[in-house]
Amino acid sequence: MPFRLESRVRYVDTDASGRIHYTAMLRHFEAAEIEFMRSLGLQMTWAEQDALHVQFPRVRVDCTYTAPVRFDDLMRISVSVDQVGRSSYTLAFDAVVHETAVAQGRTVVVCVDTTTERSRPLPDALAAALRRYQNEGMAEGADA
Amino acid sequence: MPFRLESRVRYVDTDASGRIHYTAMLRHFEAAEIEFMRSLGLQMTWAEQDALHVQFPRVRVDCTYTAPVRFDDLMRISVSVDQVGRSSYTLAFDAVVHETAVAQGRTVVVCVDTTTERSRPLPDALAAALRRYQNEGMAEGADA
Amino acid sequence: MPFRLESRVRYVDTDASGRIHYTAMLRHFEAAEIEFMRSLGLQMTWAEQDALHVQFPRVRVDCTYTAPVRFDDLMRISVSVDQVGRSSYTLAFDAVVHETAVAQGRTVVVCVDTTTERSRPLPDALAAALRRYQNEGMAEGADA
Amino acid sequence: MPFRLESRVRYVDTDASGRIHYTAMLRHFEAAEIEFMRSLGLQMTWAEQDALHVQFPRVRVDCTYTAPVRFDDLMRISVSVDQVGRSSYTLAFDAVVHETAVAQGRTVVVCVDTTTERSRPLPDALAAALRRYQNEGMAEGADA
Repeated sequence: MPFRLESRVRYVDTDASGRIHYTAMLRHFEAAEIEFMRSLGLQMTWAEQDALHVQFPRVRVDCTYTAPVRFDDLMRISVSVDQVGRSSYTLAFDAVVHETAVAQGRTVVVCVDTTTERSRPLPDALAAALRRYQNEGMAEGADA
Repeated sequence: MPFRLESRVRYVDTDASGRIHYTAMLRHFEAAEIEFMRSLGLQMTWAEQDALHVQFPRVRVDCTYTAPVRFDDLMRISVSVDQVGRSSYTLAFDAVVHETAVAQGRTVVVCVDTTTERSRPLPDALAAALRRYQNEGMAEGADA
Repeated sequence: MPFRLESRVRYVDTDASGRIHYTAMLRHFEAAEIEFMRSLGLQMTWAEQDALHVQFPRVRVDCTYTAPVRFDDLMRISVSVDQVGRSSYTLAFDAVVHETAVAQGRTVVVCVDTTTERSRPLPDALAAALRRYQNEGMAEGADA
Repeated sequence: MPFRLESRVRYVDTDASGRIHYTAMLRHFEAAEIEFMRSLGLQMTWAEQDALHVQFPRVRVDCTYTAPVRFDDLMRISVSVDQVGRSSYTLAFDAVVHETAVAQGRTVVVCVDTTTERSRPLPDALAAALRRYQNEGMAEGADA
């Protein structure tokens, strides 16, 4: 079962069109990402990141919006691991309202050494946990 | 000359990393898009959109972040027309701080009939103005 | 027991100071307000608001910040009814992280007739439910 | 003449009511505050703040909304110095669209020593410049 977060569309998320503003969807994806990382035990505190001199900026984001989302809609956001590279990883997000797919997005997160401001290899535990989640997802798919 | 907007990174745009939050870049692109449309005389009022029963939601967005952006940086955002289709168009955004390219993004905007909630052809004047801007840009490029 | 919502501080809520941006606190208060209203059965749909030609804009907000709030802090936000007038009401919000009071705010919400753009009396059911919640809170307080 | 910033309401600033979301007004006030401080030569860089071990969090904000503000409205925001204390100062903001007063707000900013996390006296140059602006404003008012 992929990780899922339920996240409700707030008033501040909407715009004058009566629908969610497209940037607000990405805030909900961020919440899903954080809770996903926590579910894998990968939620580093700031103190830990500072001690390791790492940060994890996003270097790419994309999102496709496939159906209108409105105030108070309850989104169910699934998170999957798209790719795990040497110094970056890609997460994929699927948002559903009732049974309708409303948005599909991805973020590419890179591990940066804050002393050099350059990318560096992912911490081993992080890469291993993401790969494990990715493979178990694939294995389950193969079973079906 | 492509359209350009200068837009300054505010405190609210930053996050605890000390850099711009990736969603905040998209707010600056939106400002550039609105001023670009105004420069072409294409800025419909809500009253006009309501009267025509049209809306222009974004159906896709992507952005690549190529250098850190910090509080108070002054971004110069160029807008170009990537594609003009039957019922949608794609705008491209390039953000530069000093001489450094910091972000490149695109939004796909679709014209929706609010009575049917389905896509419909772009208003003729809109499509023509976007194509004119796209071609003049290409012609200028060919001249160089 | 006053109504309470747990709401977690996200990365987008922070700014370059490493703390929550002061406007982000108000987004969390909005979430608490919406869930509070739902808990009282007072969550009007847009269709209902449109049919009644009413809207509920905020005409005043204030907030005092009493302790730093950081990324991933879990806030417990209590909502109470400060005042119920003829055409407006005031809600009060108290945010706590662990045992520390971090923010105290209020919003004044007015009922507006969208046909005249002027204030009008609160719907009876709304005023009654808010007063009931306000009085039961006071009664409980008197019991203590 | 008080300091003024023109700031345009963007689409992301609006909500499903068709008006500006109340928190978005505060983002525009922040832009006005930053440009006001710059106009007084008081815009400290982060490097300077870090070197001095100071930060300037907001400890209080309030805002009253007196008329609807809509997408694309051009606000003229005036900034005045309400009060200069030992370790904090209060700025006042007045937003006008055309000739209509739409919002009046205040922020209380405190100077914090980041090594102790406690308030400390305002830097002398900051306090002096704010008082000078405050008094010159009062003098001009007395002249009128």
